[in-house]
Amino acid sequence: MAETLFPGSYADAAETDLVRPGGASFDPARSSQARAYGARSSNGPIHAMTIERRTLLPDDVAIEVLYCGVCHSDIHMIRGEWGEQPFPMVPGHEFVGRVTAVGQAVTRLVPGDFAGVGCMVDSCCTCENCAAGLEQYCTTGATLTYASPDPRGSGPTFGGYCERIVVRERFVVKIPAGADLAKTAPLLCSGITTFSPMQHWRLGSGQCFAVIGLGGLGHMALKLAVHRGAEATVFTTSADKAHDAYAMGAKDVVVWQPEATAPIPLAMEMANRFDFMLSTIPSPFDLAPFLPLIRQDGAFVNVGAPGIIGGVTGAGLWDQRRSLVGSCIGGMPETQELVEYCCANAIHPEIELIRPDQIDEAFLRVENKDVRYRFVIDLAAGGA
Amino acid sequence: MAETLFPGSYADAAETDLVRPGGASFDPARSSQARAYGARSSNGPIHAMTIERRTLLPDDVAIEVLYCGVCHSDIHMIRGEWGEQPFPMVPGHEFVGRVTAVGQAVTRLVPGDFAGVGCMVDSCCTCENCAAGLEQYCTTGATLTYASPDPRGSGPTFGGYCERIVVRERFVVKIPAGADLAKTAPLLCSGITTFSPMQHWRLGSGQCFAVIGLGGLGHMALKLAVHRGAEATVFTTSADKAHDAYAMGAKDVVVWQPEATAPIPLAMEMANRFDFMLSTIPSPFDLAPFLPLIRQDGAFVNVGAPGIIGGVTGAGLWDQRRSLVGSCIGGMPETQELVEYCCANAIHPEIELIRPDQIDEAFLRVENKDVRYRFVIDLAAGGA
Repeated sequence: MAETLFPGSYADAAETDLVRPGGASFDPARSSQARAYGARSSNGPIHAMTIERRTLLPDDVAIEVLYCGVCHSDIHMIRGEWGEQPFPMVPGHEFVGRVTAVGQAVTRLVPGDFAGVGCMVDSCCTCENCAAGLEQYCTTGATLTYASPDPRGSGPTFGGYCERIVVRERFVVKIPAGADLAKTAPLLCSGITTFSPMQHWRLGSGQCFAVIGLGGLGHMALKLAVHRGAEATVFTTSADKAHDAYAMGAKDVVVWQPEATAPIPLAMEMANRFDFMLSTIPSPFDLAPFLPLIRQDGAFVNVGAPGIIGGVTGAGLWDQRRSLVGSCIGGMPETQELVEYCCANAIHPEIELIRPDQIDEAFLRVENKDVRYRFVIDLAAGGA
Repeated sequence: MAETLFPGSYADAAETDLVRPGGASFDPARSSQARAYGARSSNGPIHAMTIERRTLLPDDVAIEVLYCGVCHSDIHMIRGEWGEQPFPMVPGHEFVGRVTAVGQAVTRLVPGDFAGVGCMVDSCCTCENCAAGLEQYCTTGATLTYASPDPRGSGPTFGGYCERIVVRERFVVKIPAGADLAKTAPLLCSGITTFSPMQHWRLGSGQCFAVIGLGGLGHMALKLAVHRGAEATVFTTSADKAHDAYAMGAKDVVVWQPEATAPIPLAMEMANRFDFMLSTIPSPFDLAPFLPLIRQDGAFVNVGAPGIIGGVTGAGLWDQRRSLVGSCIGGMPETQELVEYCCANAIHPEIELIRPDQIDEAFLRVENKDVRYRFVIDLAAGGA
């Protein structure tokens, strides 16, 4: 097949594109083909490709994917910025769709329901964390929605940039009737990732909250915090996002530069101010500018960068008994709760709907911080 | 005066040694002289010197110092390792003595009582942290017991390596009758510094606790944790301390090297094990070897190093929702509680009593990790 950026139609996906994640363990008679959009290498564009999905196990749910959000992680993963990854890779870990079939043991969903899937599709389901509904902290490691060894197959998992997927019921969220499906998709990653730490560290009404980075996660964090009654400040590197931030309920906006290693001059009047600072910065950053801004017993929660956090000093943490903490998405019960909460309270991301053939362009725009504020792929527009 | 290492007697302290911290604001008729042991420069030895103490203000307590612990901080402070400091410096921030006089507004202490003083001698007493009994987090900054600008004088404060001191009542702990005074002195710093985070983060019976560094603070942390019923592991760089660690109640001892930047091989079987790790390492260190050992929702508490903590990664904190936190000594109500708790339960440091002329030797031994486990200066032995 020619290195077409995007073949444009299912028919263009030649036989050589057929990717059998399960290899020998997959019986074609028991699996089915699905059109997907993925990368063949870390520096390549997104291609249409045909992948196989397993036939339903008793506790599996088959979903026709309708909308899938584009997370900055998808780009980091493809580019190898978070370590070497298996290819081909089909990204996508925040999507919603329609249930088309369920295994005989499935109890919560029936065909015709709308369903969502986030960053995980499996875990041991038996360790103490899984038992507590904290599958993301499964002590043997949760199975990520894409590029993760699949315990129900023999290859890596393929994510939501596709037309169909089969997922274990426990990892499927039921979407309330009447939900705006396109705007619900990003809740499965950007929503739950920012909601979960607010729940765990009890961000409350009247508390001072700051979000660092106003992107896909950041703007959801802002909306969620404002809805809780917190007084929100936005730290952004994009001065032109200030207007949006205020419109979403921010009380203050501070423009900062990521190369800062000293306290931010504009923000020093905010010393000891924030009960809760949430960083969505996706790359290594320096904590020093933010440390003095954390209030007594306040927390700086990182949900963005997996790599090094520099500028952490003992005295900076001693002072005011500050905490630097991490939080990873959310467990399945909490994800279900978040989706229902957002749908009931009309807390939704700002999205820009794109066709699958616009994914590469969307990636570029995400890297250039030119997205307001989440791209969502309309999978049904795939054949356009 | 000749650069005698230690003059040996009060009479040797010549007039030129008289240090008037208050300068013009101190009226000799209203102050009194006291023999003290301090440093004249960052690279010098400890000298006997004569300092002035203020005459009592209404809420002041005058104390004849009997025993003062030698904290590693004293050495860091003199050597300028924690920033430039004022000289002459009289260290000492964990001491006990006898109350000799009280101001007219003092209510908790009378002459003849035994009293203790820790790392603070003053604060604003009005901010929300002070109001909550968290004077160490005073939002305008607490006054440290030595080398800190003195709001009740005009020079820096002089600490407990001296025969007499005057301290605001709020910052004086009452020592229970019958207490072993020499063994009580270190509670005012090493005891409260390790007790306070155990209280705040609720180290409980049956939890897995680790202490890193088995020195003055570390061995108190071990004893306090064991008394709470925690299962304690000691990480030490001194293999010859293992026997002592077990004798103090440790269940496991891991010998590690501070240059380690990778997970400690011996300890990897301890992955996700500890609810609470407390670091007393006094110098910059790398968190990477310890991060994987912290259990779900566990905390790594630094009470030692004021400087850079390296090897902090976002993913290392995400995983298991780990926290890196700091804790600074303890507030005055909690310090009083700790002293009573330790005296009632016979939880005391292991000490080695020294004379004032042995302070330099003690400093060297502390730096060489050759102390089992806290030096305490017997001030009454000063004229020996």
